[in-house]
Amino acid sequence: MKIIIDCLGGDQGAVAAVEGAIMALRKYGDLEVILVGDEQEIREILKKREQSEERIEILHAPTMVDGNDRPTDAVRLKRDSSMMRSISQLREREDIDAMVSLGATGCLIAAVTVRIGRIEGVRRPAFCPILPNMAGGVVGICDSGANLVVNAEQLQQYAIMGSSYLKTAYKVAEPRVGLLNVGKEEEKGDDLRKETYSLLSKTRGIHFAGNMEAREFLSGEYDLVVCDAFSGNVLCKSVEGTALELLKKIKKDIYSRTRYKFGALFMKKMFQEEKEFMNYQNYGGSVFLGTEKVIVKGHGSADRRAVAVCISQARRMVQGRLCERIAESIRENIDEAE
Amino acid sequence: MKIIIDCLGGDQGAVAAVEGAIMALRKYGDLEVILVGDEQEIREILKKREQSEERIEILHAPTMVDGNDRPTDAVRLKRDSSMMRSISQLREREDIDAMVSLGATGCLIAAVTVRIGRIEGVRRPAFCPILPNMAGGVVGICDSGANLVVNAEQLQQYAIMGSSYLKTAYKVAEPRVGLLNVGKEEEKGDDLRKETYSLLSKTRGIHFAGNMEAREFLSGEYDLVVCDAFSGNVLCKSVEGTALELLKKIKKDIYSRTRYKFGALFMKKMFQEEKEFMNYQNYGGSVFLGTEKVIVKGHGSADRRAVAVCISQARRMVQGRLCERIAESIRENIDEAE
Repeated sequence: MKIIIDCLGGDQGAVAAVEGAIMALRKYGDLEVILVGDEQEIREILKKREQSEERIEILHAPTMVDGNDRPTDAVRLKRDSSMMRSISQLREREDIDAMVSLGATGCLIAAVTVRIGRIEGVRRPAFCPILPNMAGGVVGICDSGANLVVNAEQLQQYAIMGSSYLKTAYKVAEPRVGLLNVGKEEEKGDDLRKETYSLLSKTRGIHFAGNMEAREFLSGEYDLVVCDAFSGNVLCKSVEGTALELLKKIKKDIYSRTRYKFGALFMKKMFQEEKEFMNYQNYGGSVFLGTEKVIVKGHGSADRRAVAVCISQARRMVQGRLCERIAESIRENIDEAE
Repeated sequence: MKIIIDCLGGDQGAVAAVEGAIMALRKYGDLEVILVGDEQEIREILKKREQSEERIEILHAPTMVDGNDRPTDAVRLKRDSSMMRSISQLREREDIDAMVSLGATGCLIAAVTVRIGRIEGVRRPAFCPILPNMAGGVVGICDSGANLVVNAEQLQQYAIMGSSYLKTAYKVAEPRVGLLNVGKEEEKGDDLRKETYSLLSKTRGIHFAGNMEAREFLSGEYDLVVCDAFSGNVLCKSVEGTALELLKKIKKDIYSRTRYKFGALFMKKMFQEEKEFMNYQNYGGSVFLGTEKVIVKGHGSADRRAVAVCISQARRMVQGRLCERIAESIRENIDEAE
C-alpha cells in the first residue's frame, strides 16, 4: 500500500500533511508514503516528531499551486509544483496506489481530468464530497465540482460509482440514491432531471430513492445525491455555510446576556460537539470517482488529524478495490444497455 | 388599496388567511380586501372575531388547489378553486392592486405565468423569496422557482427587478447583487455565468457585487442573489433545511444530559429567538417580479401573523409603485442596449 501525499497547498503548509502522514504510518504497519514538497522542510518536521524515514520516500517540489492560480495555467505551467509532481508520479508509477492532496480544488480537478486515466466506460470522472447527516451517518454529493454540464447518462454513472464508493469506504450496505431536484414528484424539474429519473428507475445494482429536495439533504433518508456540479456545489457550500453561520450567531448571542453566558457554562461541551459534528473534515475528504487510481482531496484547512482521516479513507478505498468495483459495475451497466 | 386574498391552500385552511386579513384591516385604515374561499366559513370566522364586513368583499370558491395537483391541470381544470378565481379577478378587475396566496407554489407559478400579464419588456416573471441574513438584514433569491432554463439577459432582468424590489419593499438603498456561482473569480462557472458576469458588470442602475459562493449567502454581504430557478431552489431549501435540522439536533442533544438541560433553562429565550430568527415567515412571502400586478406567495404553514406580514408587504409594494419602477428600469435598460 503506497500513497503519495501532496504536502503543500493546505492552509497549514507542510506541517499538517507530514504530521498526518506520521499518524497514519504509526497506525498502519502496511502503509508506505511518498511525501512531496520542500525536501528540507519535510525532513525537519520528521526529525522534530522523531519519525524515522522508514516507509517514507521524499520527493522535492520547489513550488506550489494555490487558490489564485487559474486551473489551466497551473496544469500547464506549474509542473514543478507539489501537486503536479504528485499527479505525474501517480500516473507514471505502478507502485503508487493512491494520492492525497489539500491543494486548490479547481486546479486538482483540472489536473486529474487531463492527466489521470479514466476507468474504461466512464464518461467523465466526478468529484464527490461527503457530509454528516442528522441520523449519525454520512451523505455523499456526486458531482460537486468536476462537470458543470452533464447528461442523463453521466448522472446515471454518478449513481453507480457513488454507490460503489459508499459501500466500499463507508460500509453502507445499500446506498439510497436521491436525484437532486426542485420537487419530489417524478415529473418535476427540467428535461435533464426527467430523463435521469427515468434512467435511474431502470438502473440495476443501485437503490434509487427518487427525487430529493435540498431541504431533505441532511435528513438521513439518502446516502448519495446525484446532480450536476453547479447545483452540487451550491448544495454543499450552502449546507456548510448555513451551519457555520448559525453556530457563530448562537455563540455571539450567548455573549449578549449574563444569564445566557451562565447557562452556556453547562453546555460548553455540547456546543463543541455540535461544531465537531458539522466539521466535515471528520468524515473524510472529497474523492474522485471514475479515475484509474484513488485520489482524495482534503479540505484546505485540514489539520494533521483530518489528513490522517483522508489517508485512512484512501487506504480503505484501495483495500476495498474500489476502482475495480466501479469498472465492473460500469461494464455490467453498459452490457445491460446493449 | 384593494388586495385579493386566496384564503384556501394554506396548512391552516381559511382561518390563518382570514384572521391575518383582519389583523391587516385593523392596522391599515386605507386597506380593502377581497376574501376568496368558502363563503360560509369566511363569514363564520369574521363573526367569531367580531369583525364587521366593512372594507371586505367575499367571493365564494367551492374548491381549492393543493400540492398534489399538477400545475398545468390545476390551471386548466380547477377554475372554480380559490386560487384560480383570485387570479382571474386580479387579471380582470382594475380596482384590485395585489394578491396574496398561501397555495401550492408550482400551481401558482403556472397560473401567474399563463394568466397574468407581464410588464412591457420583461422576458419572464421571476419568483423571489426573501430570507434573513446574519447581519440583521434580508437577502432575496431571484429566481427560485419560475424559470428552470434561463439566459444571461433574463438573469440581468432579475438583477434589475430584484434591486427595485429591495429598494421598494425593504428600503435597501443600494442593493448589492451577487451572481450565484461555483467560485468568486470572474472566469468561474459555465458559459451562462461568464456571459451574465460580463453583462451585469455593464448594467447601469444596479450595484453588481460579483460572483457569490453559496457559503456566503447568509453573510450579509449581498442583498440579492441572481440565479436560475434550479440552483435558486437548491440554495433556498438547503439553507432552510440545514438551519431547521441543526436547531432540531441541538434541541435533541440538550435532552441527552442533565447538565445541558439545566444550562438550557437559562437560555430558553435565546433558542426561541434563534428559531424565530430563522423563521423566514417573519420577513415576508415570496414575490413575483415582472408581473403587471403585485403577487405575494406566503408559506403554506403561515399563521395569521405571517399572513398579515404578507399583506403589509404587498401594500408596501403597491404604495411604492413597484411595478411602475420595474417598468421604468427595464425600459431604461433596453434603451441603453439599443
